[in-house]
Amino acid sequence: MMNPCIQNLLSHRSIRKYQEKPIEETVLNTILEVASRASTTGNMQLYSIVITRDAKRKQDLAKYHHNQSMITEAPVVLTFMADINRFHHWCKINDAEKSYDNFLWFVNGAIDALLAAQNACVAAEAEGLGACYLGTTTYNAQGIAEFFKLPEGVVPITTLTMGYPAEIPSLTDRLPLEGIIHYESYQDYTDCSIQSIFAEKENLEESKQLLEQNQLPNLPQIFTKKRYTKADSVHFSQQFLQFLKKAGFLNN
Amino acid sequence: MMNPCIQNLLSHRSIRKYQEKPIEETVLNTILEVASRASTTGNMQLYSIVITRDAKRKQDLAKYHHNQSMITEAPVVLTFMADINRFHHWCKINDAEKSYDNFLWFVNGAIDALLAAQNACVAAEAEGLGACYLGTTTYNAQGIAEFFKLPEGVVPITTLTMGYPAEIPSLTDRLPLEGIIHYESYQDYTDCSIQSIFAEKENLEESKQLLEQNQLPNLPQIFTKKRYTKADSVHFSQQFLQFLKKAGFLNN
Repeated sequence: MMNPCIQNLLSHRSIRKYQEKPIEETVLNTILEVASRASTTGNMQLYSIVITRDAKRKQDLAKYHHNQSMITEAPVVLTFMADINRFHHWCKINDAEKSYDNFLWFVNGAIDALLAAQNACVAAEAEGLGACYLGTTTYNAQGIAEFFKLPEGVVPITTLTMGYPAEIPSLTDRLPLEGIIHYESYQDYTDCSIQSIFAEKENLEESKQLLEQNQLPNLPQIFTKKRYTKADSVHFSQQFLQFLKKAGFLNN
Repeated sequence: MMNPCIQNLLSHRSIRKYQEKPIEETVLNTILEVASRASTTGNMQLYSIVITRDAKRKQDLAKYHHNQSMITEAPVVLTFMADINRFHHWCKINDAEKSYDNFLWFVNGAIDALLAAQNACVAAEAEGLGACYLGTTTYNAQGIAEFFKLPEGVVPITTLTMGYPAEIPSLTDRLPLEGIIHYESYQDYTDCSIQSIFAEKENLEESKQLLEQNQLPNLPQIFTKKRYTKADSVHFSQQFLQFLKKAGFLNN
């Protein structure tokens, strides 16, 4: 019989529709406790989590996430942030030099925030909840920072919506393992290996429907012309870098 | 009775000493399969994993990680990398515009790599293994990239060493949950709340020994004067930003 925890992990799907049932305080508390047990850089816990549950606040927050319905429908929305503000405050009252207002520590804080987020996601699923990540968090980091009144040194990294599932979608496809794993050294891809790695994805019924709907010849063009254009990517990159500067992580 | 998966997550500790016993292929495969089930940006799987098992390669890799003994002692070392090279190659053979060579997609790739890494860590522990993250990965990204022969568009983000545990250290301390959680908006800290949040850590026997050994008056100064100095942080920040530029993620 398969290890139930492995089974749980292999059954992950993003849940975007939720029952109206709230998440019990004890369950939410367990999820947060698990999040806090994830590994963190030097055990410094360079992240914070903001919980959004108020209906009006969820409506307002949704604006920074392209009004995705998961935000307003989920009983709980968790925003994970890289945070050196708390640690620097501890330094300040102990005459220790403010040392982490630089790019390395943005990355360390982001690592901490993401390991905690994935622990929260796994714990939520183990508790029978469903969750969904919102990649839009970094697109509008500045807006979200104002919304949450974040001080300098705090940067939104990712968002998880969670609640009891009102849908059980089928598992989404993944590339075959050999497409993402390398042994000892990175084996760069050839045209031929790329075709083989992406063949299954290209042949999904769902992929064919997408091409038909969008009148485009292949999936990569759906990504670059429809989903994530170069112009948007460049725009959001500039915005995010500007925000990182403002947040004090590009001083050097 | 507590949910065994929650129990597993709450029992996480970094394991730095391993038995000589190798990790079975089937177990490693399960761990990698679980890693690949983690959520990823637009289901694009913008990461790669390099497996290091060869004894000589581990010795050489350790040099980029301050010769930490976990690298040479662990039977398996997994290096997780943000990777847009594979996706761009798929774009190229499909006449889709190269669109993701910018900062936003470095962040998206790093998010993908870290959620996969945490899934691998949780799965390893569910299988009775122990694991340890190496934060040194971004310090020497350029060297690691050369060692693994990474092409443009691929950036080392984190490393996990894993194996059957030869130690069971006690759980490390964490800040109280109220120190990292905020409700609806970020409540900035006061000197008083910082003192309260860090009080337990400051009062640990282990902390007191550290102060004694280092002849320093408080923990923050141990961090800023000994563990992670400002000079090192600035140096590694500059190195990593230079590497990101070379890897093609700072074009705009």
